Amino acid sequence: MPTYTAPLKDMDFVLHNLLQIGSSDVPGFADLDSGFTSAVLEEAGKIATDVLTPLNAVGDREGCVLENGVVRTPTGFRAAFDQIRDGGWTSLDCDPDYGGQGLPYVMATAVGEIMVSANMAFNMYQGLTHGAYSAIHAHGTAAQKAMYLPKMVTCEWTGTMNLTEPHCGTDLGLMRTKADPQPDGSYKITGTKIFISAGDHDMAENIIHLVLAKAPGGGEGSKGISLFIVPKVMVGDDGKPGARNLVSVGKIEDKMGIHGNATCVMNYDGATGYLLGDLHKGMRAMFTMMNEARLGVGLQGYAVAEAAYQNAVGYARDRLQGRAITGTENPTGPADPLIVHPDIRRNLMEQKSFVEGARAFTFWAASLIDRSVRLNDTAAEGLVSLLIPVLKGFQTDMGFDMAVQAQQVWGGHGYIEDNGVSQFVRDARIAQIYEGANGVQALDLVGRKLATDGGKHVMAFFDIIKTECKLHDGDPRMASFAEPLKTASKQLQQAGMFFMQNAAKNPNAALAGSYDFMHLMGHVCLGLMWTRMAKAAFVALDGGGSDTTFLNAKITTGRFYMQRHLPACGMHLARIESGAEPVMALAADAF
Amino acid sequence: MPTYTAPLKDMDFVLHNLLQIGSSDVPGFADLDSGFTSAVLEEAGKIATDVLTPLNAVGDREGCVLENGVVRTPTGFRAAFDQIRDGGWTSLDCDPDYGGQGLPYVMATAVGEIMVSANMAFNMYQGLTHGAYSAIHAHGTAAQKAMYLPKMVTCEWTGTMNLTEPHCGTDLGLMRTKADPQPDGSYKITGTKIFISAGDHDMAENIIHLVLAKAPGGGEGSKGISLFIVPKVMVGDDGKPGARNLVSVGKIEDKMGIHGNATCVMNYDGATGYLLGDLHKGMRAMFTMMNEARLGVGLQGYAVAEAAYQNAVGYARDRLQGRAITGTENPTGPADPLIVHPDIRRNLMEQKSFVEGARAFTFWAASLIDRSVRLNDTAAEGLVSLLIPVLKGFQTDMGFDMAVQAQQVWGGHGYIEDNGVSQFVRDARIAQIYEGANGVQALDLVGRKLATDGGKHVMAFFDIIKTECKLHDGDPRMASFAEPLKTASKQLQQAGMFFMQNAAKNPNAALAGSYDFMHLMGHVCLGLMWTRMAKAAFVALDGGGSDTTFLNAKITTGRFYMQRHLPACGMHLARIESGAEPVMALAADAF
Repeated sequence: MPTYTAPLKDMDFVLHNLLQIGSSDVPGFADLDSGFTSAVLEEAGKIATDVLTPLNAVGDREGCVLENGVVRTPTGFRAAFDQIRDGGWTSLDCDPDYGGQGLPYVMATAVGEIMVSANMAFNMYQGLTHGAYSAIHAHGTAAQKAMYLPKMVTCEWTGTMNLTEPHCGTDLGLMRTKADPQPDGSYKITGTKIFISAGDHDMAENIIHLVLAKAPGGGEGSKGISLFIVPKVMVGDDGKPGARNLVSVGKIEDKMGIHGNATCVMNYDGATGYLLGDLHKGMRAMFTMMNEARLGVGLQGYAVAEAAYQNAVGYARDRLQGRAITGTENPTGPADPLIVHPDIRRNLMEQKSFVEGARAFTFWAASLIDRSVRLNDTAAEGLVSLLIPVLKGFQTDMGFDMAVQAQQVWGGHGYIEDNGVSQFVRDARIAQIYEGANGVQALDLVGRKLATDGGKHVMAFFDIIKTECKLHDGDPRMASFAEPLKTASKQLQQAGMFFMQNAAKNPNAALAGSYDFMHLMGHVCLGLMWTRMAKAAFVALDGGGSDTTFLNAKITTGRFYMQRHLPACGMHLARIESGAEPVMALAADAF
Repeated sequence: MPTYTAPLKDMDFVLHNLLQIGSSDVPGFADLDSGFTSAVLEEAGKIATDVLTPLNAVGDREGCVLENGVVRTPTGFRAAFDQIRDGGWTSLDCDPDYGGQGLPYVMATAVGEIMVSANMAFNMYQGLTHGAYSAIHAHGTAAQKAMYLPKMVTCEWTGTMNLTEPHCGTDLGLMRTKADPQPDGSYKITGTKIFISAGDHDMAENIIHLVLAKAPGGGEGSKGISLFIVPKVMVGDDGKPGARNLVSVGKIEDKMGIHGNATCVMNYDGATGYLLGDLHKGMRAMFTMMNEARLGVGLQGYAVAEAAYQNAVGYARDRLQGRAITGTENPTGPADPLIVHPDIRRNLMEQKSFVEGARAFTFWAASLIDRSVRLNDTAAEGLVSLLIPVLKGFQTDMGFDMAVQAQQVWGGHGYIEDNGVSQFVRDARIAQIYEGANGVQALDLVGRKLATDGGKHVMAFFDIIKTECKLHDGDPRMASFAEPLKTASKQLQQAGMFFMQNAAKNPNAALAGSYDFMHLMGHVCLGLMWTRMAKAAFVALDGGGSDTTFLNAKITTGRFYMQRHLPACGMHLARIESGAEPVMALAADAF
């Protein structure tokens, strides 16, 4: 069975050497000294290793079961959820006014990575609740906040997000779920929602569904949509749960992965709902949480890959097969371990250099969200909104590919479910699909974000890279980072230029290259991260950093990324510059 | 549920426009006129669509069950196997002396594609039997052939290949299964074999296991290995099955995919076996079938992708979501079909252009095997031996990636098992692993095949490309094929040169780039195929070919491959030229 150990040193390096959060001007960051963050992450690591990791395979094997209208979670999930709740792990970055600990989002992100690596399906119960918490926190009335938030902060009550319907996912304008206004100001919600993660379960006394539906008078398309709070169990004025609301589970989906999370068809049969935020502004309300929600999924991409990687390394060290071509390395054994073989090394280095780069990118983006929220920094907000579709789309694609590569190290044994490696692949797959399929992320990036505020944020991004490269001018140690970063960044700019020059006469020219642009930009982002991490490692070494093995490994791993991952940028540029013609030339009926 | 229609026109185009098999000098090819091949493939298509496709999901859902030592196949498999058997589909390219039809291998390959697309797991029962048939045909005594082959040609008896043991797969020198010689000339086989596809089942009256084991006196490592025939049920001199042999199923593996095929742990407890071929030459005997076996797996890679592609196209045409950016295309509907969106087109074109290129490559390689066998053409044999690791490794990697892309078109619905799309991904995954994991294919290519016969075959390959490009000099219609092919071929040569210049002082330099080389060469091969197919389409159009829509689509699809897939070559070259350093720099304990 797979094992997992939280990568505490790597996290510490990102938080303190790279981001230097302790000396940041963002309110709350000064409290995050290395002693504090290490203590928190170490505790999270313990519960992840001891409690959540063993339950990951249990959840995959047992799945969730719908019996007499009630969803039963896998053996052990309830007790583990109690432990998570009792340990205060659900409230880290929540508002102290409602019982939260008020920690920065970057800290919750680091803890989140650990929980997701250990058990992605399990962590979704808390993750969805946090999303619903954020929506109510941002858009609820004082009374709504007082009624729901304290219970959601502790996960005594969990939450869900209800967007998709059988005939519409991306195109929510086609939505059919109706909200009928009632004399008392509430609404009757009627319709069917699908793909509702954590839609029902036996781990909380109430579930607060956030439901998009159409109330009268909103007009056609997505403009007419409003957001409603629909509790599973009605809540009295005393805050106590009362009668069941008219919402029920129609079905649990049988999925490729994340079996431990109940993906439900939810039937709303005139269920009582309460308007959250403004009438007919439901899409906008839902999308204020989008950056965090998508960051959370982009995190899943590399967090599952991290767990898969750890188990690939373990297998590569243990499994004896063949001999090193440069001479036996295990003369007393019947064969050398797999890890001596160059192609196994290539495989592992691709995983390692991606995961560590993605962690840096994700924590950086989380710190930008903190900056935007806590300092009202609109530049940070603009930048992170530009980066989010890249973080989500690129990291989940790469995370899946890397999980597949980890499975490959195991050979035939990786294909056998008993060994638990296939689960990483099956679980990671969903992150490319939900919370906006990756093609939609690419569309958001190229069709919307590049041009936001007159292109201000993408120009700021290029300035960051330029400044970074300038910083290392004349530093021979940094040339193997700054030079490839400069090249990749130029390729990205050239791709953007191609879009600008062609999009006006043919919008398809940009859209046909959007997916490649997302990946090209993802590599530039990780290239930037590795350049900064290499510099941070050199600084630490120069300052007499004691863990020279670790610091040198950082530099070596980063160099691999620059030499072996970044060459993808040229390929993406060539594909983009071939334009729309090859993509659109075939008539729809000639496929 | 997924549907499947055999791509008869595409197959006809490859067989007759591209390969022009009807006018070949290979004995037997002249009989393969378009009327004959069409009739055969159409019949195969019918059984695939009507019988095998519906059973594909059944096999995935039910799997195989081990009950009281006997393996039960999924509902309907037995009846379908009878139909396959009765229709003569198991004997197409088998030796007429033993009841076969004596058709060329290329014809069996085309039929095989159809069967695999419809139901990969089911087709493996016949595929493994064919492999065992070939081994006995090549190495058996006259008596052995007479006893086993007629029954195996009809699949009344099926066959298996037993190589892997719990502690060794790639490194068979570590093998522990023993063969003790008996006074009567037989052997007692004792040991445990794992991952035995079709190891047991209820669809044949006997199963002929081919087992690698160590007989005394062979020395250490893989040199001491011999190959044995171990029937499940002993066969009397009258050819009738008698008592059970001492071989049993220890377990059926629970796998990520191909659930319809029983992957067994086989226990040999002093089972009676008969030497096949020469003592201590078992590895050599096993490897005479390697080209065909690996071609078969490379075929699975694109054949499953073909089925996935068909269902992605179907969904993209039916599912209404969003509007085309260039103007509504379905004004009377609530939204446009997915297929109007450029990124969906990109996705589908990547699949289509890969699958059609891979089909051409596979049929070409099969025709080279026919040429080598039927004309004793050593140049063809050398060439195909060079191409096989590319065909297996590249096509199964790409086939898997394309199945994942097909699933992506389905969005969340692709993740739900009921829709049957996830199965393509889970099934395709194994082809990257078995019959030599793809890293081993890359090693075979770079560590062995490039240098075979002093590099003669790779030089011949480059000559083929050069000749092809020359052919189109000054033909403006062909420039968009010949130019990118020339560039890609130069990149491949440059990569080969890098290996030659560096391998002597550091063998890891070649091995660290072997995987990228395999992919680079795969793209060159498919680029070559597309160049030839484009030319063939132009010739047909010039000659008044009536199906202009089809022929023009070929050219358009090929152009997409050249513009959108071939740019990967530059990336692979850059990665290769970074050498061994980035790959090997990290100490094993720093991972």
